[in-house]
Amino acid sequence: MQIKAILFDAYGTLFDVHSITQVCEQYYPENGYNISQLWRQKQLEYTWLRTLMESYEDFQVVTKDALIFTLNELKLEQDEIVLAKLLKAYSRLTPFPEVKEALQSLDSKQLSILSNGSPDMLNKVVERADLSQHFSHIISVDELRKYKPSMDVYQQGVLKTGYQKDEILFITSNPWDACGAKTFGFHVCWINRSQKAFDELGVQPDVIIEHLGQLTVKHEF
Amino acid sequence: MQIKAILFDAYGTLFDVHSITQVCEQYYPENGYNISQLWRQKQLEYTWLRTLMESYEDFQVVTKDALIFTLNELKLEQDEIVLAKLLKAYSRLTPFPEVKEALQSLDSKQLSILSNGSPDMLNKVVERADLSQHFSHIISVDELRKYKPSMDVYQQGVLKTGYQKDEILFITSNPWDACGAKTFGFHVCWINRSQKAFDELGVQPDVIIEHLGQLTVKHEF
Repeated sequence: MQIKAILFDAYGTLFDVHSITQVCEQYYPENGYNISQLWRQKQLEYTWLRTLMESYEDFQVVTKDALIFTLNELKLEQDEIVLAKLLKAYSRLTPFPEVKEALQSLDSKQLSILSNGSPDMLNKVVERADLSQHFSHIISVDELRKYKPSMDVYQQGVLKTGYQKDEILFITSNPWDACGAKTFGFHVCWINRSQKAFDELGVQPDVIIEHLGQLTVKHEF
Repeated sequence: MQIKAILFDAYGTLFDVHSITQVCEQYYPENGYNISQLWRQKQLEYTWLRTLMESYEDFQVVTKDALIFTLNELKLEQDEIVLAKLLKAYSRLTPFPEVKEALQSLDSKQLSILSNGSPDMLNKVVERADLSQHFSHIISVDELRKYKPSMDVYQQGVLKTGYQKDEILFITSNPWDACGAKTFGFHVCWINRSQKAFDELGVQPDVIIEHLGQLTVKHEF
């Protein structure tokens, strides 16, 4: 691989979407884990379904809708104040512990983010984690009004970075996102943090690591 | 509503996708329920993802891939013979108990199926349940090579039945399918068999029932 640019997925890859479990637990004791899991699952489903239904709403809306569904499904009470607090927590997701050092060690490449997040959500979460200086581009699907794994989204990565498909390494912890990026034609690194099975969608990642810190140690670019 | 034709979803609506739990249990004791649930979840995800990735494979392939993932994820042994037996069970799904009588009571309308299933899978499962005589059309997404809730799939229902959107009632137990059909413009009946929350995708079904037997009793067409 002659990699010139690296595109990172954001949610689940740089930022721990389950770092909100504790906030959920605070408002809904003993339900934090279940809320966090179902919230994420439905958030993803709604991005896929809205793209297929051609009825795009931005990631902020989808994230709120997924939370409302989750509370309904788990038969938990909800009010606007708690909803607002949980959604605010989503803009303050914690990066995984190795992220900052890993980005520093990769700074000979052009580093960017390619994410489902709305521009406002992405800017906030990146700034709050003090990671802005590492990224050349923060690319949101919002301009296209389609979510991953639409091929058009990965094409946006080519257009915005100015590099060719085969000069770009795409890094994600989401198996379905790795499949989309690989189908599109990127080199793909899948971060498998918790020994999950990879999706059966006819393609495989080029590289599998357990956390971002392993990337430069294990692999030469 | 002046309904002239009724389109039924098949899997989960006419046929109980979890009727295979017992067969799963036979080969994987104490795991039947978990296999059945995750298998269905991944089967749906793969239909959405493959449509977004523009890498269609038919429902037989997707169903097998979802089963392989499920066994991998649950760290269960697999061999080709067991896989084949579980997939065969999928072609023998049991219809819900009220289906036959409900179809008979609705026979003044044109009744058809609009399903993700491949033509071969659909014909087998309908014939085996002795329901063929009730349906004017068994419409598969396979010709389009896109899955629900793509708008093109629902449009196929209009083309094949010969009726207009607003003359058609679409019946499904899958909330995301109800949302797709409603977004397209059908009248929609959601069968909520197990008191689930409806999806938060910006639309609502016109009618909600708990099983098909309630349709004619509760609602005039």
